Amino acid sequence: MGSPFLLAAVSLLSALHMGYLARRVGLSRMAHKVLPPDTTGPAQFERTFRAHQNCVEFYPLFLVTLWTCGVFFSEVPAAAGGLAYMIARQIYFNGYVKSTKKRIPGFYLTLVVLFTLFLLGLTGVVRGLLHQYFHIYI
Amino acid sequence: MGSPFLLAAVSLLSALHMGYLARRVGLSRMAHKVLPPDTTGPAQFERTFRAHQNCVEFYPLFLVTLWTCGVFFSEVPAAAGGLAYMIARQIYFNGYVKSTKKRIPGFYLTLVVLFTLFLLGLTGVVRGLLHQYFHIYI
Amino acid sequence: MGSPFLLAAVSLLSALHMGYLARRVGLSRMAHKVLPPDTTGPAQFERTFRAHQNCVEFYPLFLVTLWTCGVFFSEVPAAAGGLAYMIARQIYFNGYVKSTKKRIPGFYLTLVVLFTLFLLGLTGVVRGLLHQYFHIYI
Repeated sequence: MGSPFLLAAVSLLSALHMGYLARRVGLSRMAHKVLPPDTTGPAQFERTFRAHQNCVEFYPLFLVTLWTCGVFFSEVPAAAGGLAYMIARQIYFNGYVKSTKKRIPGFYLTLVVLFTLFLLGLTGVVRGLLHQYFHIYI
Repeated sequence: MGSPFLLAAVSLLSALHMGYLARRVGLSRMAHKVLPPDTTGPAQFERTFRAHQNCVEFYPLFLVTLWTCGVFFSEVPAAAGGLAYMIARQIYFNGYVKSTKKRIPGFYLTLVVLFTLFLLGLTGVVRGLLHQYFHIYI
Repeated sequence: MGSPFLLAAVSLLSALHMGYLARRVGLSRMAHKVLPPDTTGPAQFERTFRAHQNCVEFYPLFLVTLWTCGVFFSEVPAAAGGLAYMIARQIYFNGYVKSTKKRIPGFYLTLVVLFTLFLLGLTGVVRGLLHQYFHIYI
């Protein structure tokens, strides 16, 4: 493959997106007068805080699946999956801020995108392992 | 080196493992009726929650040491270390769910694996730096 | 480019630094007698805990921008930015342990370094995309 410029672009965009979500928590702190280091307060602040935490927990998993899919399967589908993941995360985040129940659709969408990236990446990696260690070409 | 298929396979597996541990927190939420965004509740839920959080905190450190060791030292030992890390994390997690004290053995095992990956990776990187910037071959 | 030994060295160092900050939280737990899985207690412990959490949240963003800048723009400035980021994080951490207000200068310094790495990386990636997909050389 050539240099993975698309994967790098999507990764930079996702880092910016994560920065934006962290900023949303900061704005929610101000709006609800919850000073650091506190992480409890009005329900809407707590939902915003947890929404961000969940994004933080999944971000390294996203990066692993994005790059594995992009390098070992195919770059363009991986980059498209990366954009879909960010959209799914934004739907999840916006939903969670509104109510605990409204986090569900975005969360499932997130999982679908993540699993798709995972399975495509796995396909490429298994094909590579069979080739490299067993000289089997599929 | 050829394409790092083994490192990619171990990374995908570790992402799946992290997803599994996140799922365990979700199941613990249901079992103990702790609804999001709450993160406090019965002691067993809180231990499960913290066990996962600790895994989340260390996951990027694990990825950095895994790939540095695998790319700059040697791939097979790094992949073996990656599998050992997942086993250590599972022992830690299962122990922590049972009691705060039982998290200790798995945690130390985790640190031993992480330090081994770190030191092997450092060996490869220092050798590379000496070669590239000082023309010293060791 | 040759093998990115400098980026790997800075990444290993940053992983060690993150391990050190996690250790600081552990020491603060002992000093203030806050047993896991609790995360609340004396104000100084809570600030130490949150300072570490903030470092954890930003660490994957740091790795993405460090490597994008180093691979797609230039390695030496990226490595220098990586060292600056660690210093900024340490200033942030030490400040936050003392008081909530004293976290501010280190935090802004962190953001300045992160944005610099981001913009340099973006420059390299956009140049690469223009070249690869539009045959435009700038």
